Amino acid sequence: MTATVTPWEVKGVVDYDTLITEFGVSKIDQTLLNRIKKLAGEVHPFLRRGIFFAHRDLNLVLDEYEKGNKFFLYTGRAPSGPVHIGHLVPWMFTKWLQDNFDVELYFQFPDEEKFLFKENLSWEESQMYLQENMLDVIAMGFDPKKTKFLIDTQHANLMYPEALKVAKRITFSTVKAVFGMTNETNIGSIFYTSMQAVPAFLPCVLKKKKMPCLIPHAIDQDPHFRVSRDVIPKLGYYKPASIQCKFLPPLTGVTGKMSSSEESTAIYTTDDAKTVKNKINKHAFSGGKPTVEEHRKKGGNPDIDVSYQWLLFFEEDDKKVKKIYEDYKSGKLLSGELKGMLIEKINGFLAEHQKRRKLAEKQVGKFML
Amino acid sequence: MTATVTPWEVKGVVDYDTLITEFGVSKIDQTLLNRIKKLAGEVHPFLRRGIFFAHRDLNLVLDEYEKGNKFFLYTGRAPSGPVHIGHLVPWMFTKWLQDNFDVELYFQFPDEEKFLFKENLSWEESQMYLQENMLDVIAMGFDPKKTKFLIDTQHANLMYPEALKVAKRITFSTVKAVFGMTNETNIGSIFYTSMQAVPAFLPCVLKKKKMPCLIPHAIDQDPHFRVSRDVIPKLGYYKPASIQCKFLPPLTGVTGKMSSSEESTAIYTTDDAKTVKNKINKHAFSGGKPTVEEHRKKGGNPDIDVSYQWLLFFEEDDKKVKKIYEDYKSGKLLSGELKGMLIEKINGFLAEHQKRRKLAEKQVGKFML
Repeated sequence: MTATVTPWEVKGVVDYDTLITEFGVSKIDQTLLNRIKKLAGEVHPFLRRGIFFAHRDLNLVLDEYEKGNKFFLYTGRAPSGPVHIGHLVPWMFTKWLQDNFDVELYFQFPDEEKFLFKENLSWEESQMYLQENMLDVIAMGFDPKKTKFLIDTQHANLMYPEALKVAKRITFSTVKAVFGMTNETNIGSIFYTSMQAVPAFLPCVLKKKKMPCLIPHAIDQDPHFRVSRDVIPKLGYYKPASIQCKFLPPLTGVTGKMSSSEESTAIYTTDDAKTVKNKINKHAFSGGKPTVEEHRKKGGNPDIDVSYQWLLFFEEDDKKVKKIYEDYKSGKLLSGELKGMLIEKINGFLAEHQKRRKLAEKQVGKFML
Repeated sequence: MTATVTPWEVKGVVDYDTLITEFGVSKIDQTLLNRIKKLAGEVHPFLRRGIFFAHRDLNLVLDEYEKGNKFFLYTGRAPSGPVHIGHLVPWMFTKWLQDNFDVELYFQFPDEEKFLFKENLSWEESQMYLQENMLDVIAMGFDPKKTKFLIDTQHANLMYPEALKVAKRITFSTVKAVFGMTNETNIGSIFYTSMQAVPAFLPCVLKKKKMPCLIPHAIDQDPHFRVSRDVIPKLGYYKPASIQCKFLPPLTGVTGKMSSSEESTAIYTTDDAKTVKNKINKHAFSGGKPTVEEHRKKGGNPDIDVSYQWLLFFEEDDKKVKKIYEDYKSGKLLSGELKGMLIEKINGFLAEHQKRRKLAEKQVGKFML
């Protein structure tokens, strides 16, 4: 079965090497990692572990950076449900980029996107999730002095005029080919990609200054930027660069991506410690053997074990991760023990996140463009 | 040859009776004229002369009016060039409606429309014409206390969110069928009709009150409202009513409509008296005979004579118009004399308009929503 990866659907077992070819992105290689290390002072575990695995024109952004021409970061969140820990992956990395390159971040909340694409999502619901989701983004610890929130409907006076300039250069043929749109697609969804293009050059409009843009995002969003990378240079700005990550697998197994609407696949940022424990114990797909005896004898398979896969995202210590891998493979570490390690890790992470999320309620204004 | 009538093109000799059937609008009949006379105190010459000739649900709006539930008016102007006197026709009638029914007017300037639909119109040009065109609208004499300008890109914070609710309910199939859009149409143009729908219910959003809407417009804009009349009731508002007018014929003959981009067909609101005189003498299509002798003997044809046709729009006095018709038909009135009458009429009209247009420069702020 071939996997489906679009901005609105991820299905099947994603083969990321195939995606590199299909999407036409470039794999992040050792030379690029060395260059990042030189400039950032370190290499984020997501880079070392191939979680951020591909890019477009990252070298050009670094060329400019070396010349003293700083890039700005652009990423986003389309509100449609509660934030789960899979959403946090690109944001964690974006924060690292902001801190280590000392650059500005424009964080888009396209609060119309899911309203347009999901038949049953009401306007009121998407607006409610917008408010909720902003708290999670603030809880990531972005520097309020260097971070600006852009909300499509609240910043429409700034964004809609720029989106029109993009839209004039994209035909229905293009969105049909790139996004699989049909005659039955609504005209708001057809227009939408123009709004997603805007933050990649809006800072240049606002500051009347040519600056490169780097977009960290999960690979499924690449089609949007494939289209906008063609258009934006025609408007007189740099072609935006991008860097792509893999999906945190759903609890239920390493296929598709975690979904807010399927509760058993996801851990939400607001889940309490007991809920996390129960969800992982009940749903986390295991690479272990059916009996303790067999597991001790033959060992488990960390490559399909969700608990191990998640630790690759949440345990920064390379040595610990390596030991877990070996112990699980040899049978020394049991599935229940591995789940216990993950539960502890996630609950520690969420306790911190929830503390900052609570404080975030009073900070929203500081982040608004 | 069949005429083409779309919001972006009018070609050929328009048969308005055919349009009534094709578009599915209703002819304004004597019963409706009597009802308007009762409520408005008079009947505008455009109604008596069949220039405003058709409507959708005007009776429903008048029913509500009689119950004390006032409608609001909505009309507009998409900036793409200088205003010519053909543009003024629906605005003259709109002013009469405002004055005689004592109602509010929302005047839309969709400053993105022509930018999206005209390949060669730049953003800067359309913004420049926006400023120019607003002066002409103000010069019509609308009551600033009861008139609000809505500029799509400047009021996007209000309009874009509402347009999205419309857009979610319109498919590409619909805009393909109604507007003849194709795979090569840009995605901004595809989305645009949603923005044109918004002023028909935005006042209800702003005032949190259910009010009927009446849209006076030239018949070529009807496709937009045909689509939005289907959607708007689903959002909880009245289905907007509309009233349609014929086109002021181009100077060069009673086919198509006057065009800002073909100078010989149009008289601009900023043309001076000499230019008007020259244009009419040189270009106004005549229903007269080749020689004075033949004209005196056989008479002229006022039905194809542009000067006579224009007097139907600009000479309010029914008796005068009737006498001109008879005298021209009998041969008593010569083509040169008829042109002279039109020149005097138009120059008198424009002298007033230009005086008010000059004063309008300081009034723009008063009209802005």
